[in-house]
Amino acid sequence: MGRRYETVSFLSDYGTVDEFVGVVHSVIRDMAPHATVIDLTHGVTPFDVRAGSLALARSIGYVASGVVLAVVDPGVATARRAVAIEVAGGDGVLVGPDNGLLAPAVAMAGGAGRCVELSDPAYHLPAPGATFAGRDVFAPVTAHLCNGVDLLELGEAVDADLLLPGVVTLPQADDERVIAQILWVDRYGNAQLNVGPDDVPAAFGDRIAMRFSSPTDPSGGTSRTAALAGSFAELAGGAIGLVLDSSGLLAVAMDQRSAAEELGLDVGDQVTLTAGGDDPGVAQPVTIRHP
Amino acid sequence: MGRRYETVSFLSDYGTVDEFVGVVHSVIRDMAPHATVIDLTHGVTPFDVRAGSLALARSIGYVASGVVLAVVDPGVATARRAVAIEVAGGDGVLVGPDNGLLAPAVAMAGGAGRCVELSDPAYHLPAPGATFAGRDVFAPVTAHLCNGVDLLELGEAVDADLLLPGVVTLPQADDERVIAQILWVDRYGNAQLNVGPDDVPAAFGDRIAMRFSSPTDPSGGTSRTAALAGSFAELAGGAIGLVLDSSGLLAVAMDQRSAAEELGLDVGDQVTLTAGGDDPGVAQPVTIRHP
Amino acid sequence: MGRRYETVSFLSDYGTVDEFVGVVHSVIRDMAPHATVIDLTHGVTPFDVRAGSLALARSIGYVASGVVLAVVDPGVATARRAVAIEVAGGDGVLVGPDNGLLAPAVAMAGGAGRCVELSDPAYHLPAPGATFAGRDVFAPVTAHLCNGVDLLELGEAVDADLLLPGVVTLPQADDERVIAQILWVDRYGNAQLNVGPDDVPAAFGDRIAMRFSSPTDPSGGTSRTAALAGSFAELAGGAIGLVLDSSGLLAVAMDQRSAAEELGLDVGDQVTLTAGGDDPGVAQPVTIRHP
Repeated sequence: MGRRYETVSFLSDYGTVDEFVGVVHSVIRDMAPHATVIDLTHGVTPFDVRAGSLALARSIGYVASGVVLAVVDPGVATARRAVAIEVAGGDGVLVGPDNGLLAPAVAMAGGAGRCVELSDPAYHLPAPGATFAGRDVFAPVTAHLCNGVDLLELGEAVDADLLLPGVVTLPQADDERVIAQILWVDRYGNAQLNVGPDDVPAAFGDRIAMRFSSPTDPSGGTSRTAALAGSFAELAGGAIGLVLDSSGLLAVAMDQRSAAEELGLDVGDQVTLTAGGDDPGVAQPVTIRHP
Repeated sequence: MGRRYETVSFLSDYGTVDEFVGVVHSVIRDMAPHATVIDLTHGVTPFDVRAGSLALARSIGYVASGVVLAVVDPGVATARRAVAIEVAGGDGVLVGPDNGLLAPAVAMAGGAGRCVELSDPAYHLPAPGATFAGRDVFAPVTAHLCNGVDLLELGEAVDADLLLPGVVTLPQADDERVIAQILWVDRYGNAQLNVGPDDVPAAFGDRIAMRFSSPTDPSGGTSRTAALAGSFAELAGGAIGLVLDSSGLLAVAMDQRSAAEELGLDVGDQVTLTAGGDDPGVAQPVTIRHP
Repeated sequence: MGRRYETVSFLSDYGTVDEFVGVVHSVIRDMAPHATVIDLTHGVTPFDVRAGSLALARSIGYVASGVVLAVVDPGVATARRAVAIEVAGGDGVLVGPDNGLLAPAVAMAGGAGRCVELSDPAYHLPAPGATFAGRDVFAPVTAHLCNGVDLLELGEAVDADLLLPGVVTLPQADDERVIAQILWVDRYGNAQLNVGPDDVPAAFGDRIAMRFSSPTDPSGGTSRTAALAGSFAELAGGAIGLVLDSSGLLAVAMDQRSAAEELGLDVGDQVTLTAGGDDPGVAQPVTIRHP
């Protein structure tokens, strides 16, 4: 027998308007009533594996030991593998599709231990159609793991090196500029970059010039100057800042306003950072937005 | 004393922007702290009893034994009855308004056992106004059931045959055509029909012609040909399919795109299915959409 | 040691699209696995302390004893205090920013007992940036309280009289008119006023004339006559009513339609009530809406 788990941390792109999330909870409750399910989020954009993988990576350092169930699965009912991956010496198991969704979180949890393809249908539910693997494959497997079924009972062992990696966009940097990308726009309109404070040369000073361009309109774009800030409230009077956010990355932000809306920013946009000079950095009217 | 229940499965049209759901949880937590509440969904369109009844029917086969609390209740504070209905020999009790919301789920759970109108105010909370029966009637009754109060203590017994039935739209079919209806459009834009694969004559072949028409614009409409498919990913290159979905019904679907948006489909639209012939079925430009 | 708590009731403006709520749940689950977290709502408009304080005040009478965690915190990472406030002789503790968010709920729970500023970092999590106090300060403090850490261990005692009060808008009334304000528009479009039935002079009769005006357009506005009603369903045929709502206040409402949408109403609008006379009160076409 494997380890018995008490907590399931659950992330998906199911949304909460339909009953998908509730049905997955129900299956786990029915099969492993001792387990508590924590919803990380179900608001991942439909089919957006990369956004889901980033949300999971931001969360993984905080989840309780147990099973992490993650489902953003455009390839459901195809040959893409369903997998379970042990991390942290078995303190945790990640369950989901092998499409890159789990990879960044596995890496942040110290790398993969034992891995298995969820190929034994004895641990699944019978299903009228194959489109809801969350209910029919991932939820019952999660419940069996909570009940102490050993990982290797669930199917064929898989070499961790053959799991699909995640997609990570690294910034390009030299002494004069850092070319960053927007990873995430949160509810408040803060636009998280893929750079931390140490990625920005000290010679740039406390004011950073930013040039934004969208992959769908690379010739357009707008420029602003940002103050480096430790809180949103430092950004008085409509100023734009680069705030050290809760992931330790820099986020383009404003005080009590959506920087993403104000500047027309979206996930995937490129942001080129250079030394900001003497520009006072107060918000100018924005004339260029995404189409 | 009746049976003691550990799980409450909760569905409503309350949404999650206001605190309605949280207050119902709080009342149950306060009165029956041993019970766990599973949220099926609270995203049912406001006042849409039929949509709520379908979501509950899709879920009921998966909920853990216990109390099912369902509230889509446009007639709150009127003479419509509040009821509790035993199913499955007392393994489950459905609690909610007697407006057709519970009927399909009760039928799928094998039919009604003992029924009661929730007419004894001793099991309700005092309330400053009568508009929030979820908090003041249904939540405390649910908690009392979890605590082992017998169903018949809660009010007057009701003849199950007098409960309001649900509204089910059956397809019309002959050898040449099947006239179906869209029951549900999910988050991904899949449009579930009220027909399963056995409702479509085998003579139609693997390609099915579909004609869509809206009840608000029956003269308009658009036509497409769909492949029968077992997964979304089979529908490459913008093809439209009829996919066997997780309820065992056929859904108009596309791969990683919203078929409902692409084709202008909505719940209640009529879909006429006929033999598809040789039409290659790739998406044509859509010129007619719902107003 | 202080009291050990089993329930956390959690309200915020975090939304559910990002993983903020899930991470706070995770921290509490990890540190105090015996505690159950009830989500009151996370749909408070971003930064809207007043709306959050009203939702919390509407809920507080129903939450189970334990910790109430509330985070609407535009001043995060500034000098605004983070606090914990005992109520009801220690049956409850409210945890959150000292910005007026907690004040109305504290008052409704009988007033503040012991108060402390959450100034001891030993009870917080280390954090790469200071923008997510929910995760790094409020969640671990909540977990420590659940585990029995005494309130006064968490930092410096604070004089309850120095806590920031909430903002309450009282109606202005004389014998001829009551000038009310819209406190809340719920999912169904009911517009809750800051007046109860006893605030309306009996001499106004059963029909009340209402004049609406917006703070952004005080010269415009529209007028309607409402029937006093005990349920939405009494308002047949598109009539507008003043319904006694679940908070014991009057709400401008319609039957199965959104009064707020129909009349162009929003939170903060002023509503002047006078005697309604013989006006039949059926809905007229609306010509003036918010811009």
